Amino acid sequence: MEQLEYQEGRTEIAHLGKVPLIRRLTTDFPICNPSTLMGVGDDCAVVQPSSESEMLTLITTQTLVEGVNFDMMYTPLRHLGYKSAAIAASNIAAMNGTPRQLLVSIAVSNRYSVEALDELYAGILLCCKRYGIDLVGGNTETARAGMTLTVTAIGEVSRQAITYRRGAALHDLVCCTGDLGSAYAGLLILEREKVTYQANPNFQPDLASYDYVLERFLKPEPRLDIIQLLAEKGIVPTAMTDISKGLADAALHLCEASHCGCEIYEEHLPIDYQTSRVCSEMSSNLIPVSCALNGGDDYELLFTISQKDYDKVKSLTEIHIIGHITEEGMPASLVTPQNTTITLRAQAFQSNQP
Amino acid sequence: MEQLEYQEGRTEIAHLGKVPLIRRLTTDFPICNPSTLMGVGDDCAVVQPSSESEMLTLITTQTLVEGVNFDMMYTPLRHLGYKSAAIAASNIAAMNGTPRQLLVSIAVSNRYSVEALDELYAGILLCCKRYGIDLVGGNTETARAGMTLTVTAIGEVSRQAITYRRGAALHDLVCCTGDLGSAYAGLLILEREKVTYQANPNFQPDLASYDYVLERFLKPEPRLDIIQLLAEKGIVPTAMTDISKGLADAALHLCEASHCGCEIYEEHLPIDYQTSRVCSEMSSNLIPVSCALNGGDDYELLFTISQKDYDKVKSLTEIHIIGHITEEGMPASLVTPQNTTITLRAQAFQSNQP
Repeated sequence: MEQLEYQEGRTEIAHLGKVPLIRRLTTDFPICNPSTLMGVGDDCAVVQPSSESEMLTLITTQTLVEGVNFDMMYTPLRHLGYKSAAIAASNIAAMNGTPRQLLVSIAVSNRYSVEALDELYAGILLCCKRYGIDLVGGNTETARAGMTLTVTAIGEVSRQAITYRRGAALHDLVCCTGDLGSAYAGLLILEREKVTYQANPNFQPDLASYDYVLERFLKPEPRLDIIQLLAEKGIVPTAMTDISKGLADAALHLCEASHCGCEIYEEHLPIDYQTSRVCSEMSSNLIPVSCALNGGDDYELLFTISQKDYDKVKSLTEIHIIGHITEEGMPASLVTPQNTTITLRAQAFQSNQP
Repeated sequence: MEQLEYQEGRTEIAHLGKVPLIRRLTTDFPICNPSTLMGVGDDCAVVQPSSESEMLTLITTQTLVEGVNFDMMYTPLRHLGYKSAAIAASNIAAMNGTPRQLLVSIAVSNRYSVEALDELYAGILLCCKRYGIDLVGGNTETARAGMTLTVTAIGEVSRQAITYRRGAALHDLVCCTGDLGSAYAGLLILEREKVTYQANPNFQPDLASYDYVLERFLKPEPRLDIIQLLAEKGIVPTAMTDISKGLADAALHLCEASHCGCEIYEEHLPIDYQTSRVCSEMSSNLIPVSCALNGGDDYELLFTISQKDYDKVKSLTEIHIIGHITEEGMPASLVTPQNTTITLRAQAFQSNQP
């Protein structure tokens, strides 16, 4: 009967922000086990099974909330299942690792039928099969409303290959994979169609010309192909993270952990033509580079490599060299084609993106 | 815009039941990684870091939902934090393992302040410190309403000591730890006081004489002391699980996995006098043995040992020999003092228990 005791000096969670909140909550926790190599503060926790073991264990967990991280109006459950598994796998990739096991814990209201959960799990199965991941656990719980999904992935990486967010050094090259901003462009289309549908439920959307950006949003792929490619080419990035909340957010995390700044060249950002087309359709104020910097859900990789690896990377079409690391004290910044330097800020668009 | 497609042939989740649901959802998933020793179907997943490694990795994840698994009316946040970590640790103990790392993922509405989360994490910290567990990750997400907590624990156990639910053999002795039904008795008291409080908010409950059962419900302890004791005595149980949804549920799981039956003697069930007193206060129909069989939240251990270990166990005050294993095809059953045999059924009381 004492639940109201803690209301003195009330601070709103929204006021503090997510990253400072996690820091505040976890700052007092000591690390006491020698097996714990990395706790809170990177894409995964890192555990060494024994002090001699060559392979390290990676663990990541993430919660996705209906109405916050996904909208059931336009998210087929099969896609949601696939995407949940892909997000967890992407966090393992972000440490240069390979996902091996997955646990899925869901809380669902009675609005969902068993057949709906069959669809969700069919999507999870598809992603697991594609990437060789074993579903090894989880549970289902009743929820008062909606659906909350928590995915936990276990992966492995060798001591030689593990890549943290920290580790970028002065003059390292900044690279990213795939293209950026397209998932956000897909979300914009889905939100637009939702509004139209709510106004007129007989409306039949024509989404065919947006197939690429829609797939990017609804069914992202963890870049495990890049992890394999880097291994084949003998490249170990000096630092890495995945791009889940926009390039700006990822670059800021990487620079903060590595105690450095960076310069990213706007004209080198990989942006798909469909992303540009969606932007021009949506608003004269929305430029594609904003989608790349502040959109979310791309699940591409951002990493840095030593200049000595330049020759190995330059011909790889799925890897783009977009900038370089600057010294500590310098900001993470964007250099425009007009040679103006803009300091990056974390301002991921607030929308239905995980 | 296709979310309604799956409504044909709708089956209600409540109609199917939790365990059959998880079986249905996970049955198509193949195990493809040689590192996966145990997937869905025990208290933890089991992973071998390498084929030579002596130590195995245990992983368990569980979601707790406000209003379903806990009631904020009488659950102090600090206790909730402690209990969440304890539940995860108890699953590791159930495989004869030791918890090492914990990840906590929460979804909270803006009803909760930062200070409220401070309390939650203070409870998690207390449990982590007590049992030497490192908090290594997790995230916070916005929820539309209430709080949903997912705890994931990583533990370790040697190949020699790992204990599955399967493995009980004919004539093995059935043992349990601590006492049973007391957490449920605590819940009954809290529910009674809640009703009184709702009728008269000025009412000051006097809970002093229920201290033991309340602590059992609000702040359970994972029986890691028993895991250590078994190791010291050189005892490896033949099968084990934790008692989270009543003894009947635990015994049925163990017997099903081990392909055997069991006989449990009612007069050997360890029941605290406070549990008995609460029962007699509550209703003339509520008998303490029902709380032990069908109450939840005890987080004691149920395990079987070979008869050759009888001498090692008989003098240990925290371990009670309550029955023996019968052959395959026989039911899990309770033998009353009048020598009547009652077949156990899973009928965990439906209430606010995880």
